[in-house]
Amino acid sequence: MLPIDADRFLSDLHELRAIGASGVGKGVVRPAYTPDDIAARDWLYRKFEEAGLTPHIDHMGSVFGLAEGPSILMGSHSDTQPEGGWLDGALGVIAALEVARAAKEAGGPAVSVVSFQDEEGRFGVTTGSSVWCGLQEAEQAAHLTDINGMTLEEARSAMEDRLGDPVDPGRFTAFIEMHIEQGPVLDTEGEVAGVVEAIVGIRDMEIVLEGEQNHAGTTPMHLRRDAFQALSDFNTQLNDRLRNVVTPQTVWTIGHVALHPDAHSVVPGRATFSMQWRDGDKDRLDRMESIIRETVQEIATARGMSVVFGPMLGLDPVAMDPGLRETLARAAEAEAPGRWRHMPSGALHDASNMARLMPAAMLFTPSIGGLSHTFSEDTDEEDLTACLRVLARAVADLG
Amino acid sequence: MLPIDADRFLSDLHELRAIGASGVGKGVVRPAYTPDDIAARDWLYRKFEEAGLTPHIDHMGSVFGLAEGPSILMGSHSDTQPEGGWLDGALGVIAALEVARAAKEAGGPAVSVVSFQDEEGRFGVTTGSSVWCGLQEAEQAAHLTDINGMTLEEARSAMEDRLGDPVDPGRFTAFIEMHIEQGPVLDTEGEVAGVVEAIVGIRDMEIVLEGEQNHAGTTPMHLRRDAFQALSDFNTQLNDRLRNVVTPQTVWTIGHVALHPDAHSVVPGRATFSMQWRDGDKDRLDRMESIIRETVQEIATARGMSVVFGPMLGLDPVAMDPGLRETLARAAEAEAPGRWRHMPSGALHDASNMARLMPAAMLFTPSIGGLSHTFSEDTDEEDLTACLRVLARAVADLG
Repeated sequence: MLPIDADRFLSDLHELRAIGASGVGKGVVRPAYTPDDIAARDWLYRKFEEAGLTPHIDHMGSVFGLAEGPSILMGSHSDTQPEGGWLDGALGVIAALEVARAAKEAGGPAVSVVSFQDEEGRFGVTTGSSVWCGLQEAEQAAHLTDINGMTLEEARSAMEDRLGDPVDPGRFTAFIEMHIEQGPVLDTEGEVAGVVEAIVGIRDMEIVLEGEQNHAGTTPMHLRRDAFQALSDFNTQLNDRLRNVVTPQTVWTIGHVALHPDAHSVVPGRATFSMQWRDGDKDRLDRMESIIRETVQEIATARGMSVVFGPMLGLDPVAMDPGLRETLARAAEAEAPGRWRHMPSGALHDASNMARLMPAAMLFTPSIGGLSHTFSEDTDEEDLTACLRVLARAVADLG
Repeated sequence: MLPIDADRFLSDLHELRAIGASGVGKGVVRPAYTPDDIAARDWLYRKFEEAGLTPHIDHMGSVFGLAEGPSILMGSHSDTQPEGGWLDGALGVIAALEVARAAKEAGGPAVSVVSFQDEEGRFGVTTGSSVWCGLQEAEQAAHLTDINGMTLEEARSAMEDRLGDPVDPGRFTAFIEMHIEQGPVLDTEGEVAGVVEAIVGIRDMEIVLEGEQNHAGTTPMHLRRDAFQALSDFNTQLNDRLRNVVTPQTVWTIGHVALHPDAHSVVPGRATFSMQWRDGDKDRLDRMESIIRETVQEIATARGMSVVFGPMLGLDPVAMDPGLRETLARAAEAEAPGRWRHMPSGALHDASNMARLMPAAMLFTPSIGGLSHTFSEDTDEEDLTACLRVLARAVADLG
C-alpha cells in the first residue's frame, strides 16, 4: 500500500477550492481561461514542482506534472462550470497528486499528473484532452466560441506566456481518472466507490430558428412567425417522438436559450438554443439526431421559418480498459468490501478521449443527493479518503 | 387649412432618424435614456425653441414645446425599441411640430408639442406619460428596472442636469397623437388614415419558474425539475386553455426568456420569462390573467417547482374622445375620401394615459407589411404627408 496522507490531500483540495470560491457553500466559479482558472493552473504548477514532478503547460493550457521515464498518467481537470462545485474535476487532479507523491515516497510506480483544460466545454466538449488526443486540430479548436461569442484563441491569450509544446503521449502506460459520480446511485445505495464500465456518448449542437420579429400588440396570432412558439412546439414534439427510442438511461437537454430581440413587447424573430443528448449506444445517438433534425425542420417548414444547425460536437460511447477495471475492482473490494459497484458514466470525462491513446479507467466517488454542476455539489470527506485509498491500492498493484 | 410644409416635415423626420440610426435600412436604436435618446431630446429642444415654443424637459425626461396660454397638446415619443423603426413615435412628434409651426404662422390655434419618455417600456409601460398622468408615482417609477437590472433612476441620471418640474396639465385642452398603425390593416386595404376608436388594454408581468439545477448527463429524465421544460409545458397548455376565451383580436406573447445558468450541460434550474397579453375588453384581460396564473401554478406544483409572479404592469382599454374622433373623421373624409376607416389600436400609446387627463384622440398612418418594432418598419412618404394633411385640417377645424 502506498503511504498516502489523507490530511495533506484534503488540505490541498480546500486550498484549490479557495481559488474562484463562489461564496455560496463550497461552490467554485473557474471556467476555462478565466483569471481564476489560470491562477489555479499556476498553483498546480507549483504543487507539481514541489512534489518532485517536472511541471509543464501544453499548447492548450493543460498542466502536467511529469515523472521521469514511462509512467502512469492520472488526473482530471481544474476548470469548472459557470456555477460549479469544489470536486468536479479538482478531486481527480488532487487525488492524482497525492498518489504521485505517495508513490514517489514509496519508490514507485512512476505517476504523472494532469489537469486538462476546458473539460467543462466553455468552448467545445472536453476541449484540452480532445485536441491532445487528435480528435480535433488545435487550429480548428482555436476558432470555437463561447456563449458570448469569444473565441478560444482570444480567451487563451490570457495565458499565452505560459504555453508550451504538446506532451508526447508515448511516455504514459495508462490513464486513471478519479471523479465524483455526479449522479444519485452511489449516494442512494450508501456505497463509496464505482468502477466505470463505459462512458456514455454525447452529441451537442446549437440550433437557430428564424421567424419574423414584429410588434406584440398589432400582429394577429395567426400571422405570427414567433421563434419562441416554434421552439416550444419543437420541444413538445421531440419529447413525444423520442419516447419509443430512448431507454431510462438516455438523457436530452435544452440548457441554453437566447431569444432575439428578447423584449416583452416584441414577437421574438429568432431563437438560438442548445440541444444535447447522451446515451451508451452509438446507434441510438444517431437515431436521436435524425429525429431532432427532422422535427426542427418540419416545424420550421410548417411555420414558414428557417432553421440553421450549428456544428455537431460530440463523442461516441467509450468502454474502459478491462485490465484496469479489474485492478480497480480488486482494490475496491479490498478497501470497501461490498460497498462498491461496476457502473456506467452518464457524464462525459477526459478519460473518453484518453481511451483513444492508451488503456484508460475511471473511479467514482458518491455525490450527495446526486447534485453536480451547481454550487451545492458535495461529498463526505470520509468517502473522499476511502476512495483515495482504493485508487492508491490499485496503483500500487499496477506497479 | 394650415400652411403645412411637407418638405420641412420630411426633412425633420430624416434628421431625427440619423440620431441612433442602426445602419440597417431606416432602423433606429434609441431606447429611453441612452446617449442617442438624450441627443434626440436635445435636438427636439432646439427645434421647439426655433419654432417659437418654450422648450421644457420635465422630471421624467419628457420634452415639451409649450405654446402660450391654453393650447392643444400634440405629440408622441422619440425613444425606440431595442431594434426600432424611424417612425414609431418620431412620426407623431415631428407631425405635431409641423402642425404647431403651421398653426403659429396662420395665427392659431395654439398648439404645444411633446415627446414623452420611455413609451416603449424599457422600464415599465409608457412610463413618462403614465407618471405625468398620475397612474404611478415618480418615486415608484424610479425603482423600475430594465432587462439588465439597471434602475430607471440610474439610467435617468445621465440627463439629470436637464430635468425640470412637471408641466401643469391644466394648460392643455386636448391631446392628439398621430402614429403608424404597426399592423397590416390600412396597408392591406390601401387606405391612408385610421381614426382610432379605442386603445386595447395590456397586461404584462414577469414570471419565474424555479426547479433544480443539475448535471445534464447524470440526472435521469424522471428525476429532473427542468425549468425550461416547465416553461414549454406552460406555453403549450396556455395556448390550449386560452382558445375558448379569446377573440381573433386578442394577442399574447412570451418575448423574453432567461434560463439559469444557461449552459449546454446543465439542466436549467430557473426560467424567468415575460408574459404579456392585450385585448379591448377588460373582463377578458382579467379572465386571461386568472388562466395564466392558474396554469403556471398547476405546472409548478405538478413538477415540484416554485413560481414567483412579478408585479403586474398594465393599462385598461381606453375609448378615444367622441368629439375629437368626429373632427378627425371629417378631416379624413375631406382629404382622402373613402380611403380611411375607424379602427381599434392593438398597440398601446401615450394617448391611453392622456385620456385620463383630457379629451384624447389618435390618427393612424399605414405600416408597410404591418411591420413594426423592427428595423424593417416603413411607410410611403406620400402616405405620411397625406395623413399630416388630415391632422392639420382637423386642428384648424378645432381652432
